[in-house]
Amino acid sequence: MSIQVPFLNLRAINAQYQKELEKAAQRVIQSGWYLCGAELESFEAEFAAYCQTQYCVGVANGLDALTLTLQAWLEMGKLSKGDEVLVPANTYIASIMAISKNGLIPILVEPNPETFNIDVNMMAAHLTKRVKAVMVVHLYGQMSDMEAICAFSKENQLLVIEDAAQSHGATINGKKAGSFGEAAGFSFYPGKNLGALGDAGAITTDDAELAEVLRALRNYGSHERYKNLYLGSNSRLDEIQAAFLKVKLTYLDDEIASRRSIAQRYSTKINNPLVVLPKVENEESHVWHLFVVQLEHRNALQRHLQEHGVQCLIHYPIAPHHQEAYSELKGLKLPVSEALHNTVLSLPIDPTMSDSQVELVVKAVNSFTL
Amino acid sequence: MSIQVPFLNLRAINAQYQKELEKAAQRVIQSGWYLCGAELESFEAEFAAYCQTQYCVGVANGLDALTLTLQAWLEMGKLSKGDEVLVPANTYIASIMAISKNGLIPILVEPNPETFNIDVNMMAAHLTKRVKAVMVVHLYGQMSDMEAICAFSKENQLLVIEDAAQSHGATINGKKAGSFGEAAGFSFYPGKNLGALGDAGAITTDDAELAEVLRALRNYGSHERYKNLYLGSNSRLDEIQAAFLKVKLTYLDDEIASRRSIAQRYSTKINNPLVVLPKVENEESHVWHLFVVQLEHRNALQRHLQEHGVQCLIHYPIAPHHQEAYSELKGLKLPVSEALHNTVLSLPIDPTMSDSQVELVVKAVNSFTL
Ligand SMILES: Cc1ncc(COP(=O)(O)O)c(/C=N/[C@@H]2[C@@H](O)[C@@H](OP(=O)(O)OP(=O)(O)OC[C@H]3O[C@@H](n4cc(C)c(=O)[nH]c4=O)C[C@@H]3O)O[C@H](C)[C@H]2O)c1O
Ligand SMILES: Cc1ncc(COP(=O)(O)O)c(/C=N/[C@@H]2[C@@H](O)[C@@H](OP(=O)(O)OP(=O)(O)OC[C@H]3O[C@@H](n4cc(C)c(=O)[nH]c4=O)C[C@@H]3O)O[C@H](C)[C@H]2O)c1O
Repeated sequence: MSIQVPFLNLRAINAQYQKELEKAAQRVIQSGWYLCGAELESFEAEFAAYCQTQYCVGVANGLDALTLTLQAWLEMGKLSKGDEVLVPANTYIASIMAISKNGLIPILVEPNPETFNIDVNMMAAHLTKRVKAVMVVHLYGQMSDMEAICAFSKENQLLVIEDAAQSHGATINGKKAGSFGEAAGFSFYPGKNLGALGDAGAITTDDAELAEVLRALRNYGSHERYKNLYLGSNSRLDEIQAAFLKVKLTYLDDEIASRRSIAQRYSTKINNPLVVLPKVENEESHVWHLFVVQLEHRNALQRHLQEHGVQCLIHYPIAPHHQEAYSELKGLKLPVSEALHNTVLSLPIDPTMSDSQVELVVKAVNSFTL
Repeated sequence: MSIQVPFLNLRAINAQYQKELEKAAQRVIQSGWYLCGAELESFEAEFAAYCQTQYCVGVANGLDALTLTLQAWLEMGKLSKGDEVLVPANTYIASIMAISKNGLIPILVEPNPETFNIDVNMMAAHLTKRVKAVMVVHLYGQMSDMEAICAFSKENQLLVIEDAAQSHGATINGKKAGSFGEAAGFSFYPGKNLGALGDAGAITTDDAELAEVLRALRNYGSHERYKNLYLGSNSRLDEIQAAFLKVKLTYLDDEIASRRSIAQRYSTKINNPLVVLPKVENEESHVWHLFVVQLEHRNALQRHLQEHGVQCLIHYPIAPHHQEAYSELKGLKLPVSEALHNTVLSLPIDPTMSDSQVELVVKAVNSFTL
């Protein structure tokens, strides 16, 4: 059957803002200034304000946002090579790569199978003197238990970095994702809730020194033209992408509201006993980047939905510790994560979905039998 | 005095193609596909054809083009951590960083002070069993002596990577920059002869396996969605930048012709005995990314020109081994390089310069006295 409900209709999402996006592009093309200029500066200010942080540093993508933050802490003497960093075992592999690429050691921590997020009790179980930081991932758009995690980290003098790639705009008691840790990495990959029209990312923080080091690290390690202090990277957020992001940021809260409305309809109307729906502790803490159900017969449901024109994805089919890139971790036993990787399925969720498309997904899921 | 001749008038350069660039942007915005799609694929094919190579792999920038190529050779077992790589001592620091960032050791080799490029005789002086590769940089737009370098490298089983960031379109006997080494890294930084409207870069090569590994490395180490073979990076060339580059590639040869014409006028008309003009062995081997003169009183000339409304830059004021990022190299004695860093000055060279602007520069340089 042809696709009735695409997993994510990015073309339709951006078509809503077509005129504004074209104007933004035109403005940047004409300006003659394409990197680290006024567009980036104003986007950084707007995104920092949105996230309730003092600083925002734009970089080339979400992986770099995490990688450069950890490198900055190494340069600042807050971390040393070989230090251990707690990170959830079930996340997009980029979170873990950011740790390894800096010569730090990722310690994979099992998640809570109901929230998909890092289990604070399990964090305690992995605590040794070698652990110096924790990277929490607000997976699928739902915030981790930041109050418990921050208390635990403070008690044990751990740095906290939030991987907020999937959770722009989520809040706990009115406090935004990206404002809890010492720093947070965001991705603006096109498919994210706040997506550029190409690769982009950012770090939010209240730490002025960290922001300053990051501004050098993204620019060949240079604060000042032709002076290089660090072995840096080239990781800049293009002016044209900053201009696009400024447009899209103004619609982010509306898009989150649409996502929440779809999630609510899924949650109330999907009643197939084979399918476990996602649990949400707190409405405002979830921005529904993904709507992820669990079931033993995940592959069969994906085929069934495909036959009904509904496109699904799996986030993610292979656990990081089973990837070839992490052969040194393959001996780990992480039963909760491993089970999740075998049972999760992401239903389409997209602010431009029509009511009838939502109905179609609900019906297709409910009609699934073994 | 106000600026009469800017160093590089990127706004004017891109204004020539305004309509086409806006159309390209519009096409990509509307497409709904922003990464690793049809625009990139066709740009890669066109740029490979332009460079006379089998493959082109687009990446996020020039530094990554070099860094990922060396990483690919590490992954392929062609290099090992700790191997030494010969590289010119006077280059933009990114060339050297690409080596260090991979755990390889840069061996800084003095240039020929007349061509600014790596001195083949000095390469031989640094040859030990630990040296496994050479990175040549075609500085300022002029090709290195590739016949001698390739012969030397073949004899000594060294891999050759060309840093062609400044030399798109230069040729030796009709053979293009980027087609001599096992691989070449290009930058499409906006100010380059072929410049995007943001960051972009590429690798050219005839090695199918290398191209394949690079395609994974730029994409989180993944050839196939959700399967990660390497600790890769996120280093993609955005669709919108690929679309811009396709427009600009069609004008590259015209722009090179304009640059050559300006260089020729500078070379014939500047006759200030204090100023040493760049030496060119072969017209076609120089694409005049920069027009670099040498003189003892470089700073005084820069001020003098500034007073006459002529904007100059210095490429580069500080030698890489004197940068704080390379404190471990600060003991090196590299007199040729050090002298160059104190004596070079880049005059404006830009395909949109008017005849009267060229005259103004010539007059201003010729009127300089001590
Ligand atoms: C927790 C966490 N930390 C760090 C990161 C790293 O951030 P990054 O470096 O910015 O990628 C991620 C990234 N995370 C994502 C990851 O979740 C995964 O996301 P995905 O949903 O599998 O993405 P996808 O399938 O490529 O796109 C989703 C849909 O959108 C459609 N699409 C896509 C594109 C690009 C398009 O142009 N047009 C389209 O129509 C195709 C699909 O239907 O893969 C991406 C490459 C990563 O950026 C993360 O989740
Ligand atoms: C040999 C070699 N290897 C690897 C690399 C690394 O490649 P990369 O990672 O792609 O940078 C380089 C990069 N090389 C260049 C390097 O040569 C240097 O170039 P530069 O001439 O000093 O550049 P600039 O002063 O920023 O810009 C030149 C002029 O253009 C104006 N301009 C600039 C921009 C960006 C704009 O939007 N609008 C403008 O009007 C301002 C200036 O008048 O610094 C850059 C950041 C590097 O990309 C290299 O030379």
